[in-house]
Amino acid sequence: MDQIRDISASSAQATTAELRTLAILADLDDDAFNRLAGIADVRQFPAGYRIHDQGALSVPFCLLVSGQISCFRTAPDGTVTVVDVIQPPGHASLQPALTQLPTLVGLETVGASRVILIDGAGLRGLLPLLPSLATALLKAEAMDFHNLVLQVCDLKLRTTAQRLGHYLLELAPDRTSPSVTIRLPFDKRLLAARLGCRQENLSRAFATLRDLGVETKGAHVVLNDVPRLRDYAVAFDEPAGAAG
Amino acid sequence: MDQIRDISASSAQATTAELRTLAILADLDDDAFNRLAGIADVRQFPAGYRIHDQGALSVPFCLLVSGQISCFRTAPDGTVTVVDVIQPPGHASLQPALTQLPTLVGLETVGASRVILIDGAGLRGLLPLLPSLATALLKAEAMDFHNLVLQVCDLKLRTTAQRLGHYLLELAPDRTSPSVTIRLPFDKRLLAARLGCRQENLSRAFATLRDLGVETKGAHVVLNDVPRLRDYAVAFDEPAGAAG
Repeated sequence: MDQIRDISASSAQATTAELRTLAILADLDDDAFNRLAGIADVRQFPAGYRIHDQGALSVPFCLLVSGQISCFRTAPDGTVTVVDVIQPPGHASLQPALTQLPTLVGLETVGASRVILIDGAGLRGLLPLLPSLATALLKAEAMDFHNLVLQVCDLKLRTTAQRLGHYLLELAPDRTSPSVTIRLPFDKRLLAARLGCRQENLSRAFATLRDLGVETKGAHVVLNDVPRLRDYAVAFDEPAGAAG
Repeated sequence: MDQIRDISASSAQATTAELRTLAILADLDDDAFNRLAGIADVRQFPAGYRIHDQGALSVPFCLLVSGQISCFRTAPDGTVTVVDVIQPPGHASLQPALTQLPTLVGLETVGASRVILIDGAGLRGLLPLLPSLATALLKAEAMDFHNLVLQVCDLKLRTTAQRLGHYLLELAPDRTSPSVTIRLPFDKRLLAARLGCRQENLSRAFATLRDLGVETKGAHVVLNDVPRLRDYAVAFDEPAGAAG
């Protein structure tokens, strides 16, 4: 019994340590971390693991430590679209965990992924007790909304080839180099769904970008003329200074 | 001086009364309403009034009592897209008021509009003191995100004609009638921007829908065969039961 208690205590400490690494929780105090750890479960999922289905109820808030999570929505005719692919230290399902509405999207790991699951009912119960947690989640939701507004503008203002160009530029680690080689974080099927186009349109978009110095080599893409691609793709970019 | 105090007190009472009518604040207690009224300003704006520009800092949280507000983003080349047109009792600029980031969109009234402006710094200051306000805003942000996820799916999965059909169906007050006449809430220029297409594509989309029984008569649109339009446009609809 004492041994179980020890394991449980050391597991809670390990969870607290992982929670402390997450930027969105940076302003929490020790008490808040300990209480969150009490309703958290750290899980290591294999690639292609379905965390929850579209339409699921009572989902946990999912914090991604490593790996990738695809947030996808399936239409009645079977067409699948990907709203977003979450990268660490991102998160998913905060909104349904707060509202208790059925989830609009399903969640699936893209590669092996380490995820902290925070129980939804527990989270809602903590909010009135921990103003610093409520403030942190208000900011996290605001940033989720901010990113989705940018995606809506991207979809409304850019062509598929421009969206692809913009996406590739965002993957470039050094945005000042005239040329750069990047690695696609996932396959072209998922990339097409994320950009909101069919796979054949993605191929056409890559063909369009070839004239602008974009070469594909398997999962790697060489951007030979970054300024030219930027001119082409980022015609509707964030205002100067807002880009990362 | 006493007279000024009286006017100010009666104005605060009037503001509290208007705040109480807003569904997103339904769960607040008297103390919260009084404190919010202390940082709120009720304004009557004419049509076409610019509430704030894109890129504005330190914006207020805007609660719409009547009228309409367009949330639009202008690209460097002058192209304007409309992220959303807010209808009462909707709201805008909650996220930038919380994060203090420059706004991604400008806000402009579409018709004469009554708006309650809540000071951003005041709002952030109240959050740690009023857990019920934080909870209300967490839910409001979650619903904003929810609606934007649906719009992203709409943009990624539907053609322009399907998006138009879906939009028209959403305006129908009675969703069970086989035919219905609706009134477009704003002009076709704004409608095209909201749907994320050029005006000529909107005209083509209306032409496509004509074969499905959709007739335009100025600002009115007659949907002569709702079930057929629904079949065509809502191929990627919300799961059964989620539709309003």
